[in-house]
This record gives sequence, C-alpha cells and structure tokens, in this order.
Amino acid sequence: MADIQHLIDIIVEEMRERPDKGRVADYIPPLAHVSPDKFGMAVVLADGRMLCGGDAQEPFSIQSISKVFSLTLALGMAGDGLWNRVGREPSGSAFNSIVQLEREQGVPRNPFINAGAIVMSDIILGRGEPREAIGQTLRLVRDLAGDDMIAIDEHVARAELATGFRNEALAAYAKAFGNLNNEVDRVLGVYSHACAIAMSCAQLAMAGRYLMLGGRNPETGKQVLSPHRTRRINALMMTCGHYDNSGEFAFRVGLPGKSGVGGGILLIAPGVASVAVWAPGLNAQGNSLLGSIALERLAGRAGWSVFEPRG
Amino acid sequence: MADIQHLIDIIVEEMRERPDKGRVADYIPPLAHVSPDKFGMAVVLADGRMLCGGDAQEPFSIQSISKVFSLTLALGMAGDGLWNRVGREPSGSAFNSIVQLEREQGVPRNPFINAGAIVMSDIILGRGEPREAIGQTLRLVRDLAGDDMIAIDEHVARAELATGFRNEALAAYAKAFGNLNNEVDRVLGVYSHACAIAMSCAQLAMAGRYLMLGGRNPETGKQVLSPHRTRRINALMMTCGHYDNSGEFAFRVGLPGKSGVGGGILLIAPGVASVAVWAPGLNAQGNSLLGSIALERLAGRAGWSVFEPRG
Amino acid sequence: MADIQHLIDIIVEEMRERPDKGRVADYIPPLAHVSPDKFGMAVVLADGRMLCGGDAQEPFSIQSISKVFSLTLALGMAGDGLWNRVGREPSGSAFNSIVQLEREQGVPRNPFINAGAIVMSDIILGRGEPREAIGQTLRLVRDLAGDDMIAIDEHVARAELATGFRNEALAAYAKAFGNLNNEVDRVLGVYSHACAIAMSCAQLAMAGRYLMLGGRNPETGKQVLSPHRTRRINALMMTCGHYDNSGEFAFRVGLPGKSGVGGGILLIAPGVASVAVWAPGLNAQGNSLLGSIALERLAGRAGWSVFEPRG
Amino acid sequence: MADIQHLIDIIVEEMRERPDKGRVADYIPPLAHVSPDKFGMAVVLADGRMLCGGDAQEPFSIQSISKVFSLTLALGMAGDGLWNRVGREPSGSAFNSIVQLEREQGVPRNPFINAGAIVMSDIILGRGEPREAIGQTLRLVRDLAGDDMIAIDEHVARAELATGFRNEALAAYAKAFGNLNNEVDRVLGVYSHACAIAMSCAQLAMAGRYLMLGGRNPETGKQVLSPHRTRRINALMMTCGHYDNSGEFAFRVGLPGKSGVGGGILLIAPGVASVAVWAPGLNAQGNSLLGSIALERLAGRAGWSVFEPRG
Repeated sequence: MADIQHLIDIIVEEMRERPDKGRVADYIPPLAHVSPDKFGMAVVLADGRMLCGGDAQEPFSIQSISKVFSLTLALGMAGDGLWNRVGREPSGSAFNSIVQLEREQGVPRNPFINAGAIVMSDIILGRGEPREAIGQTLRLVRDLAGDDMIAIDEHVARAELATGFRNEALAAYAKAFGNLNNEVDRVLGVYSHACAIAMSCAQLAMAGRYLMLGGRNPETGKQVLSPHRTRRINALMMTCGHYDNSGEFAFRVGLPGKSGVGGGILLIAPGVASVAVWAPGLNAQGNSLLGSIALERLAGRAGWSVFEPRG
Repeated sequence: MADIQHLIDIIVEEMRERPDKGRVADYIPPLAHVSPDKFGMAVVLADGRMLCGGDAQEPFSIQSISKVFSLTLALGMAGDGLWNRVGREPSGSAFNSIVQLEREQGVPRNPFINAGAIVMSDIILGRGEPREAIGQTLRLVRDLAGDDMIAIDEHVARAELATGFRNEALAAYAKAFGNLNNEVDRVLGVYSHACAIAMSCAQLAMAGRYLMLGGRNPETGKQVLSPHRTRRINALMMTCGHYDNSGEFAFRVGLPGKSGVGGGILLIAPGVASVAVWAPGLNAQGNSLLGSIALERLAGRAGWSVFEPRG
Repeated sequence: MADIQHLIDIIVEEMRERPDKGRVADYIPPLAHVSPDKFGMAVVLADGRMLCGGDAQEPFSIQSISKVFSLTLALGMAGDGLWNRVGREPSGSAFNSIVQLEREQGVPRNPFINAGAIVMSDIILGRGEPREAIGQTLRLVRDLAGDDMIAIDEHVARAELATGFRNEALAAYAKAFGNLNNEVDRVLGVYSHACAIAMSCAQLAMAGRYLMLGGRNPETGKQVLSPHRTRRINALMMTCGHYDNSGEFAFRVGLPGKSGVGGGILLIAPGVASVAVWAPGLNAQGNSLLGSIALERLAGRAGWSVFEPRG
Repeated sequence: MADIQHLIDIIVEEMRERPDKGRVADYIPPLAHVSPDKFGMAVVLADGRMLCGGDAQEPFSIQSISKVFSLTLALGMAGDGLWNRVGREPSGSAFNSIVQLEREQGVPRNPFINAGAIVMSDIILGRGEPREAIGQTLRLVRDLAGDDMIAIDEHVARAELATGFRNEALAAYAKAFGNLNNEVDRVLGVYSHACAIAMSCAQLAMAGRYLMLGGRNPETGKQVLSPHRTRRINALMMTCGHYDNSGEFAFRVGLPGKSGVGGGILLIAPGVASVAVWAPGLNAQGNSLLGSIALERLAGRAGWSVFEPRG
C-alpha cells in the first residue's frame, strides 16, 4: 500500500500547480478568510493505516459534511420513522433552495440538503436543550474519530446564525408544514453548531471509518449503525452527497461522498478506505473544486470505484 | 451458486403471493393489456451461467431500458462530446416532465429521462435514415444478447408514436433550443422503435453482460465500451436509472439499474451478475413495483450491494 | 341613487339564500370561529352618502386589505424608490408562495402578496420602533375613515405571530437577499398588527374614499396620494388584488379591489363609489366567496365596470 | 379634439428622438429585417374620426395582437364553454413558457399567451379545414376594420411554421392532456396565419373599434360581441395583454391593450378611443419599447386611464 502514499503525494503536487482553485465561500464571514491555496488529504485504510499529504493536519470547518454525522445520530434516535419526515431523492436544485419544500409540503427531499439537515437537528434536539444536542453531536464525532480534541468553532457558529436567513426561512417553512417540533431558533442553534465543527483531514478520515466498515467504530469496537443502515447511508451519499452536482460526482469518482462549503469532502470506499480532502475553493455548485478533482484521480488510479467489476 | 437459483425460486414465490401488484401502464394501448400477474427473473453470472425463474422466457416491451443501449450506441458515435448536449444529474422530476428543459435551456438533465433519450436518438440518427438508425440499435441489442431473434414490436412502436404527444413536445422543445439536428418526427421514429424492442428477461440479462464485465461483450470478445465509460454508465444508472425514484432504488437495492414502463428492470452487479426482472404493475413513479421489491431482496440476500464492504 | 340601496338590499337577500358559503379561514385560530353566515355591505358614493346592508356595522379582521393602506403609507415614506424593492406584476401563484421569491432573488412580485407587504412593513418601520410603525398605520386608517374608534385586535395579531411560520420564512428569505433592513420579528410585528386591524364594512368603505377620489381624503381635504399614484394603486388592485384569482375578479367585476382572508373585500369604482363587503367563507384561492359574487352583481347591475364605455 | 392630433404629433417627435429603440425580434427571420426606426400611431375616436402620425399607414405583422380577434371568433363559436379549456389569470411567466402548462395539466392560463391562442385556434378550426379557419379569421379582421385589402403575409406565416418549435411543443403538450382536438400541425397552421396578418396602425385602430363600442362594429352596425363579453375581453387585455409585463402596463397606462412581437400594440379606451401604435424594437418582456412609452404618454396626457375618476 506504499503506492497509496505515492498517489497522495502526486495528487498534492498536481493540485498545487493548478491555476484555477475555485472560489472560497464568502457568505459566512469567517470562512471567507481561508486561503484558497490550502490543500490537504488523508486516507485511512481498512487495516487502520493512515496516509496523509499537504495540509492534512490543519482544521477546517466541516460544514455540511456534518450532515452525515447528524443523520447517523438522528437514525439512532428516531429509527426508520425518520424517513416519514425527510425523503431519499436527489433534489434537482441548489443546496439551499426552498422551492422543493413548497412543492412537497415541507418534507425535504433528502437529509443532505440544508432543509433535511434542519429536520435532523429537530430530531436530535428532541425535547431537550440545544446545548445537550450540540454536545451529543460533538461527542459522536469525537468517538468516531477517537480524538477528544475536536471542537466547535464558536466564531463560525455565531457568524452562521447571524447571517443564515435562508436557513431560518427553510426552518420556518418546515415548521409551517408541521415538520419541526421545536422552535426555529433552537433548531438552528443545533444545526449551526454541527456545521461549525472544525476538523483536520486526518481527523475527518478517522471519523469516517465506520462508513467504510459496515457501521462498526474500530476505535471502540461498537456498532454505531447496523451494516444495513450503513450501506443505505453510503447510497444516499452517492445519490445526494454533492447537492445538484451529485450525479457528476458519482459519474467521475464512483464512490459515496459528502461535501461541505468549507471545502472539505469525506469519501468512502466501502471496505477499503475512508478519505478526507480539503481545498477551500468551490465550484459553481458549492463543492470543493480541487477536492473533487483530487478524489476523481485518487479513486481512478487506485481502482476504488464501486462500479469497478469485483471478483 | 446453486443458492442463487434457490434465491430466485423463493423470490418468484414471494412475489406471486403479494396482493398489490401495482398498476399496469395504460397510456400506450398495447401495454395496457399485459397481465399484472406476470413475473419473471433471469440472472447471468460472471462465469456465464444463466439462472431463471417465473416468466423469464416471455418477451415484454423493454421501453426505457432501451435508453441504456441508446446511450451506449450514441457514446460510440459522438464520444464525450455527447455530454455537451445532455447532463448527468438526477432530474428531481417525472420522467416526462418538460419543466426542467425550459429552465435549463433545452439540455436534458440526463440520458435516462425521455428528453435525454430523444437527444441520444438524434445523435444515433446522425445524417442518416430512421430505418438505418433503428437497424443499428436492434443490431447492438442482438449482438449484446447473442440472439438474432430479438425484434421490435411494430404494433407498440406505432401506438407510441400515435399517442406520444408529450414526447413530441419534448423533442420540439429541445429543437427550439437548437439541441436537435433532425426533424422531430424522424427522431421520434428512432426513439419509439428503440422503446418498442421486445425481450425476455433471459435475453435482457444476456444483453446486460457488458455492463457487468467492464464493457466487454463476452459473446464476441469485443470491447463495446471502455472500462472507464462502463463504470460511468453504471454510475448514471445508479443516480438516474429510476427517474424520480432513483434515490430510493439506490437506497434499497444498492446497485445500478434501469427500469422501463413495460415493467422490466435491468440490474448490474459489477463483476458479479447481470439481472433482469419483469413484473408489469408499476409504482407511483412508473417503476415496476414487484420488480423493485424482488431486486431489493435478491441484492440484499446475495450481498451484492456495491456499498457492501469488500476485501 | 335610491336604487343603489335597493340593489344592496336585493344582494343581501340573494347572498343569504345561497347554500354554499365557502370555507372560513382556519389557520389563524381567532378567525376560525367567525360565523360563515355573516354578510355585510357598505357603499360610499362620491357625494358622500353611505348606503348599507346586512352586517355592515360589525367589525371583522381586514387582514390583507391592510396591504392597500400599507402601500399608501410606504409610498409616502419611500416614494417611487419603493419599486426597486417590490415588483408590479401578478404573481401567478398563491398569496404565501415562496417559489417566486427564490426565482426573483428576494424581490416580491407585487405589494399585495404577503412577501410584498412584508417589505412594505420594513419600509414603514424604517429605523424606528414597531410600536410607532403600528401606530402610524392605525392613525392613517382612522384618518381615512374619519373614525378614531377603529382598533387593532391584539388577540388576532398575537395568534398570527404565533402561527405565521410561512410569513417568517418569507421575511427571512427576503432578508437573505438583502431586501429587509430590520430584523425579521420586528418587521413581522408591524405586518401582523396591520393585518389585525378590525373594521366594519361601513368603516372600510369610508377608509377607501381616497382611492375613489384621486387620492384626496374628503374628511380632511388633504391629498393622501397624488392623483397619479392613486390611479396606479387602483391599477395594482385590478391586476394583483386577489392573489392568483385577480384575473378572474377583473373579468367578472371589472373594478379594482383588494381582498383579505377575514372575508372582506374593498372595491373602488373610481369617481363613483367606495365599497366594502364582508362574508367570512372563502373560495379556493382565499378570497371571500359570497363577497366576490355580491360585488360582481353590484358592479354589473350598477354599470360600474371601468370597462363600461363612457362618454 | 384637435388636441389629440397635437398629442400624437408631439409623441411621434419625442419617440423619434429617443436613442434606445429596443431590440427587433429576430426569431422569425422576416421580422428581423424591419427597421427599428419605424414609428406609427393611429387613433379612432368614438365619433369615428381617425387621427394619425408617423408611419401609421405602413403594414406590419400584428403577431399576438391577433389573439384578441381569435378570442372574439372562438367565443362566438364555443360560447362560454371555451373557458373550460383556457383560464383567465395572468401567467406570471414568459409568453412561450411551457412550465405552467405542465403544472396546470394542459389548460393554458389565459387566451393571450401562445398556448392559450393555440387552443383558440383549435376551436376555430373545429372539424373544418385550416384554409377555411384562416379565411374566417381574416374575414373577421377585414369586417372589423372595414377594409378588404388586409392580407396575410404568407412569407411570415411560413417562416413562423418552419421555426416555431416552441409552439409545436406547446400544442403537442396541450394535446397530451386532451386539450387539442385537431392535429398539431393543422392547428399551428391556423395559429401561424393569424399571427401573420399584416395591418397598418390605421387599419388596426379601425379593427379595434368594436372593443371601444361595447362590441358593436360601427362599420356594419352589427353586434360582434355582447357588451358583457366585450367588457370581459377588455378586462383580460388589462390583466393579461402584455405577457409578464401586464401589471406594469396597467400600472403605467391604465388601459386594456394587447401587444405583438412585431412591435404593434392595440389599446382600448372604452367609449373613447381605439388606438394602435407600432415601433418594432421590443423591451425585455417582448413588448414594443417605444410603443409602451408612447401609449403611457398618450393615455396620461389625454386623461384616458380607466382609473381616472369619472362623473
């Protein structure tokens, strides 16, 4: 597997040389100041080895990648009843579009668009306090990564709350249709703090291991999700993980992944690898530009596509 | 592998017993008369063995499953330039919706919705005659299946042309945006005849082998598609193969597939199996109701999901 | 003009006898308890005479009729610059739809749908306090009607705020696009209180006189609006005054009007009459069912349509 | 009334001096060659006097203005049953949009968008031949204008048919929903020939007299439409006569009108005047740019707005 390290090194080099690095998200002020030249990549293999390249140890805001962890947590709490409140289809529109929510009466198309993750946050909040729900989310991520140093960037969380009027609209709209039990601002408190978790590629790749390993957290040996549900989350990441660019990502990379506007992407090769990449510049659909290209190359050269004939 | 045969037998039995068989498509008159009690399944394994159950030898109208073969043919003719004329994203709307075509200026979202397949038909037609283009499509399917008895049901083709006003609208709309080189009725002639190909499950599973085998037709030993493009077609089948039910199918079955309103579904387990199922009753999104359930069970019990950890 | 009184009497009788009275709005709890049997009508003629019928002295919640007064007030504050923040086109969708707001980047289609009136409320609020803005709105309505007894029903205002999640979504969405200067809840405070003004038909017809008289308040002799702007508000009432039923209302009645979900409608025959009707049961588009029919009859029998040839 | 002539002269002068003349429609080739410097205006007063200015005697393609005459003819044939097949609401979208037709199941929003006029053409065609239906339309227009020299520009009609793929899509879509009895190409033959009628401003203003005079053709003394239906057509012209710019036109001009992409507009001041203007350059919504401005000035200075207080 020395060749995976070699692949990473080459890709880090290739990405450094590309002139077009995409556009750093500017709608959340603290994110706007991140340098577009950052690039990191980390791979954890099934046998536990970790291989890194570039800025793999530097924390960044995971943003929507947190939706994978929120779904994991919410599924544990609500079970499959969760699917009465959120769909499983690609949205065919932007990550923060409200049009679909009106057409489909307050039921978000999937848990990986903002509206869907807001409903997940409502489930996680339950009848409790935002503080507790945020704590639970952070604890899950720390457990999965085996790293208690992972923290929430309060500065980002507050900036997101202060400017997140589209999210407020989505939450209020879901509530108008009876698909939110808690108050809008309490739910958005939970949502925004999950988005504001800061992790390095190394930590994120570690946290993704359970999705590679049929739901088992190798850190604790415990089953976080059943193998059945783990396959299903992987399927959702494949069809819905990159907003209205999900088809393109599946077409090019051939693996389930989830992106965030902080420039990170978590990628799962089931049974083979958990990968995290970070490059802050985004493409037109809000996914990491260089991150997507890097993962296409890594998956292509390593032969990891799930559509690669096995046997 | 005797157990696959056993799995098929059990599933055929289970499907026979289900009271709700869905609703047979009635908008193309000849399809409306097919009995909802029909159920067939055929599996071709990587080693070439064929296993069948139920009405696996009875021909049915493959309808939109033909879009996979049309894409294969069009890719061979136009190469990746084809992707300038059709997208690669799930549509988020019904198979025959025209809304997306207006919003995105005549570029269909993917080759597996009607508008996309109409553009593929225009590419296949090229500067030639509909008769020739239809002949080429039929020849490809016969070559892939290794069966010269496969034929087009002219009765269905004509019925489809006579009632296909939505398809005429889609074609005219694509032409209004400059995304159709030939005349509307000539393109629809090609399109409708491809939809009207009649195949049994056994023939269809045989025809799907190249998608299981990295693009190689085991019948002739020739590479129909490069391995790279084959993975990509599989990815498209995963994200877009079941119209606005594609996310659900990926979630439940975990394998690339393509459905048709005739009640057939072609399913690919890369490197493992090419599967065809047929049950004429449809669900609300226009996919075979029992066919989807049967494939969920087969893939689940055989452990074929691409999201199953390997290694 | 004794015949107008006669017309009113006949219409009151006719409406009392109709079995289908529509459906009383139930999404704001206090409105749900109003009897569908109520029916009132008041006409103020250009010479100042007032003619009444039915429950013309009973106050009801004017709801969206307040949007006419809010526009009048906002125009006085912001002038025609107001039209940079709100359009002048019929929406082609429901009164509380958010779809249009996304497609047109936070600019409501017209001031008579909820989103548009929310932006008006933001203008009226300016840099001041909600209490003051609410006071100004109420003062305008009292001045126009020449009646200091007109009041806001706090019970309705509070109920509206507590359940108005769609309005919260609309306000937050407008704010996301930079089209709201104040905070969402402060703007909604102003908006909801304007909607909760309670008036009788007699009071409402009095308040509408300036729209019949080229912008002059006959009570004070002062010009509330220029004749030019008054014609324009009448034009907007004609094209946009009944949500997605405006075309139908213009077609049937031929006069500018504005409806509210409390069952009231204000109707203007320029130079001739200011009319108010109240019947709490609504049609499918959220306009007073009997109110619309009554006004069609009154305008038709009195020959008041603006499309009636003059001269 | 010498002052109306004076008003016309001034406006012709003012329009000649404006640097921005809009953009001549280029999607129908013969229309693309018309000079943007043309400007004509004609007014017929209730007493029969005709006042002209500029290029008022030069014929131009009336295009969508023909929809008013088609509606008049279709109403005479189908009566109010016509309203089961077409709505009476502004569309909130472009004149050739197909989105609404999908959402509302093949029923066009109003008779003045393309889809609506196509359904009118189907009614006019009835069970007859396109040649006859075209003849009837032309005869109506000639009778209304009292001028047998009015003709159809076959060159324009053919160009429209050859490039009208959006209209073909609209017709096919209406037919898919059962809202077209005849074949698509026969209906479009009728539709395109009506659009291709060529008239001068003088002829058009004459043809519009019945809409000013409560439905009576002063040429023949016969009632073309009942007064009731005439008011209603005027109301439709007010709310829907300028596509997605109808609200703006009502706001600015305050009179019912109907525009065409040839640059013409027919304007009705009920009981007062029938006006035609022609300036080939269009605004962003497809209405004559200078024509709209000219009519705003004429109506404003003459005090013709229907929202002007009467009495």
